Amino acid sequence: MIYVTRREVFSAAHRLFNPELSEAENDLIFDKCNNINGHGHNYVLEVVVAGEINPKTGYVIDLKKLKKIIKDFVISKVDHKHLNFDTDFLKGKIPTAENISVGIWYQLVDKIDEGKLYSVKVFETENNYAEYKGE
Amino acid sequence: MIYVTRREVFSAAHRLFNPELSEAENDLIFDKCNNINGHGHNYVLEVVVAGEINPKTGYVIDLKKLKKIIKDFVISKVDHKHLNFDTDFLKGKIPTAENISVGIWYQLVDKIDEGKLYSVKVFETENNYAEYKGE
Amino acid sequence: MIYVTRREVFSAAHRLFNPELSEAENDLIFDKCNNINGHGHNYVLEVVVAGEINPKTGYVIDLKKLKKIIKDFVISKVDHKHLNFDTDFLKGKIPTAENISVGIWYQLVDKIDEGKLYSVKVFETENNYAEYKGE
Amino acid sequence: MIYVTRREVFSAAHRLFNPELSEAENDLIFDKCNNINGHGHNYVLEVVVAGEINPKTGYVIDLKKLKKIIKDFVISKVDHKHLNFDTDFLKGKIPTAENISVGIWYQLVDKIDEGKLYSVKVFETENNYAEYKGE
Amino acid sequence: MIYVTRREVFSAAHRLFNPELSEAENDLIFDKCNNINGHGHNYVLEVVVAGEINPKTGYVIDLKKLKKIIKDFVISKVDHKHLNFDTDFLKGKIPTAENISVGIWYQLVDKIDEGKLYSVKVFETENNYAEYKGE
Amino acid sequence: MIYVTRREVFSAAHRLFNPELSEAENDLIFDKCNNINGHGHNYVLEVVVAGEINPKTGYVIDLKKLKKIIKDFVISKVDHKHLNFDTDFLKGKIPTAENISVGIWYQLVDKIDEGKLYSVKVFETENNYAEYKGE
Repeated sequence: MIYVTRREVFSAAHRLFNPELSEAENDLIFDKCNNINGHGHNYVLEVVVAGEINPKTGYVIDLKKLKKIIKDFVISKVDHKHLNFDTDFLKGKIPTAENISVGIWYQLVDKIDEGKLYSVKVFETENNYAEYKGE
Repeated sequence: MIYVTRREVFSAAHRLFNPELSEAENDLIFDKCNNINGHGHNYVLEVVVAGEINPKTGYVIDLKKLKKIIKDFVISKVDHKHLNFDTDFLKGKIPTAENISVGIWYQLVDKIDEGKLYSVKVFETENNYAEYKGE
Repeated sequence: MIYVTRREVFSAAHRLFNPELSEAENDLIFDKCNNINGHGHNYVLEVVVAGEINPKTGYVIDLKKLKKIIKDFVISKVDHKHLNFDTDFLKGKIPTAENISVGIWYQLVDKIDEGKLYSVKVFETENNYAEYKGE
Repeated sequence: MIYVTRREVFSAAHRLFNPELSEAENDLIFDKCNNINGHGHNYVLEVVVAGEINPKTGYVIDLKKLKKIIKDFVISKVDHKHLNFDTDFLKGKIPTAENISVGIWYQLVDKIDEGKLYSVKVFETENNYAEYKGE
Repeated sequence: MIYVTRREVFSAAHRLFNPELSEAENDLIFDKCNNINGHGHNYVLEVVVAGEINPKTGYVIDLKKLKKIIKDFVISKVDHKHLNFDTDFLKGKIPTAENISVGIWYQLVDKIDEGKLYSVKVFETENNYAEYKGE
Repeated sequence: MIYVTRREVFSAAHRLFNPELSEAENDLIFDKCNNINGHGHNYVLEVVVAGEINPKTGYVIDLKKLKKIIKDFVISKVDHKHLNFDTDFLKGKIPTAENISVGIWYQLVDKIDEGKLYSVKVFETENNYAEYKGE
């Protein structure tokens, strides 16, 4: 079993708030992340696929192919977008790093046909990140 | 003459478009940066001050003091903000890295009373940045 | 189950030696790390918490809260300190990255009340680090 | 159980192709990585050893000793080399990050006599890497 | 005057030797960089353009346009290539970081029609780089 | 004219205080940097040499040679040392990044016989650094 990772970067805006809570509660919980006009990040995404090495290619999965899958099903929906308004797979979710990781997992899990999706990591800043392994 | 640098990070949303141009022209020039709901970045800011070493302290300027100046006059106005709507010193400007650098220069230049402001660098992504030296 | 990580940095001095060994043995084992006046590092600390996403917040644990816990129980005791003399939770320990990781684990493990502490990583340099998972 | 990591860097050339396939198949699979004159990378290697802390030293394994093992059995065979021609432990293998990771694992696994080899990670670029854990 | 920078990465092989010198002299000067089968690097390229801000766009030069110029005239000739054999603008040159910087300068200097080329930096490793400013 | 840079890292302890000032003044100026037992950093040093390319080698100065000069005259005196006690060229100086840069400049300036020393940069943390150019 080998684990291969592809790293991508996307730039997006978001606002953290829960529409079911009062303004005061949202301010208490989300503080400056609840700025009404939003703010943004250069998100770093790491996608890990686990599998056996294919002796014909020396690859678990060709990372050029993995890159294309990530681009078609994730990057095209989040890069230079506002995650609260523009991203179908986050509709109705508070776009925290946690929920973004889970959302990306379900975008990718059935598109990967060599090896199996093992982990999705989303770095919101150099100091904060979330990881989901489908369990 | 010594050059001292303080690095800070801020997370902001922005949208690039020129309200004096047509929608088609804006799309042509700004492409995905013109997304109507905006997008965002973790901006990295580097502020350089040049001066003589004060023999009493060994400092050109105490970087704790420089940090506070940057926080009061820049970070408080851009971090977790939307640069098109929330930032007074960018009003009426297209918030490119170039214009942000110049805007930050004029926020800081007369607040620094030990040494002189030498350079303001703004990294929009790990691949794109702008620098202004006041000339 | 989601894993969320908070990264912090602290600057500290230390000296590696075992008072129960002879000077010659200490030199042999710890070499330049045994410099009598000490040396130091910018340590990078990564704290991982594992848990379910709280649907009210989208968080496993609010990273602002985790940051405060880390600051109160770890950073305040190690940042701009000498780990051999100033840090209560390392008293009587050789302050290697291994022992620092374990020490930090026990500072944090019962303070985290949303999710559970999963891992503590301590980078001594960009080339050397240790991780403890409580097992 | 503690996990300690040593990071090393090496600069090498390689060419990806499978001599049992036709030129057209090689081009299809390996694309620009199949450039006949080769290309190259600054590879980053992370070696993780897991074990108990030795109370005499505070170490799982002295990282100076681990560094020497890695240098003698890996770096000397790959740094400033062409992986297809100069590296005995990759002979007959397509030198993908996957195969390099497995090759390095078997170079190291029986040389480490304090703790046990836990993981070998090979970063080919800042965006692509492979990890092998011996399973 | 504003300075804008675009960073690109390319992976290439090279061998350092001077065909006019003896084997012994080449070994003495270039040591392991003279490995007969070559070695390689992930080169990082930073291209700086200096100019006035265009009030219509807020740009000195659109970095998407600069990226395309760099791709067409540099990256296409060096990425996944062997610099001694595959790169026309380095023919007859020893492909050191110094000579690569100068070579890239002359590839770009007359292609940039908004602002002026100010600097070309080439990082061979994270520890070694060269910069040329056309003077 | 080409500028070549060599980056080195050293780990050192220091304490910032001015023995000619009172304890209260030292606390006011240097705050936590005045911890009586000291603290420390992984300093990053960048040394820039400017000169013409030697057509025989393609180098301004062989960076292996520059590395040796830096090692012999700087790294051997600061790495795994306490800058207040162990470093001859900082005796009687407050070991700020500013004073360390100037001290390193004078260690190196007359040892470099190919090209000329152009700049010495000392990063104390990822957020704070100083640069001296000999003027």
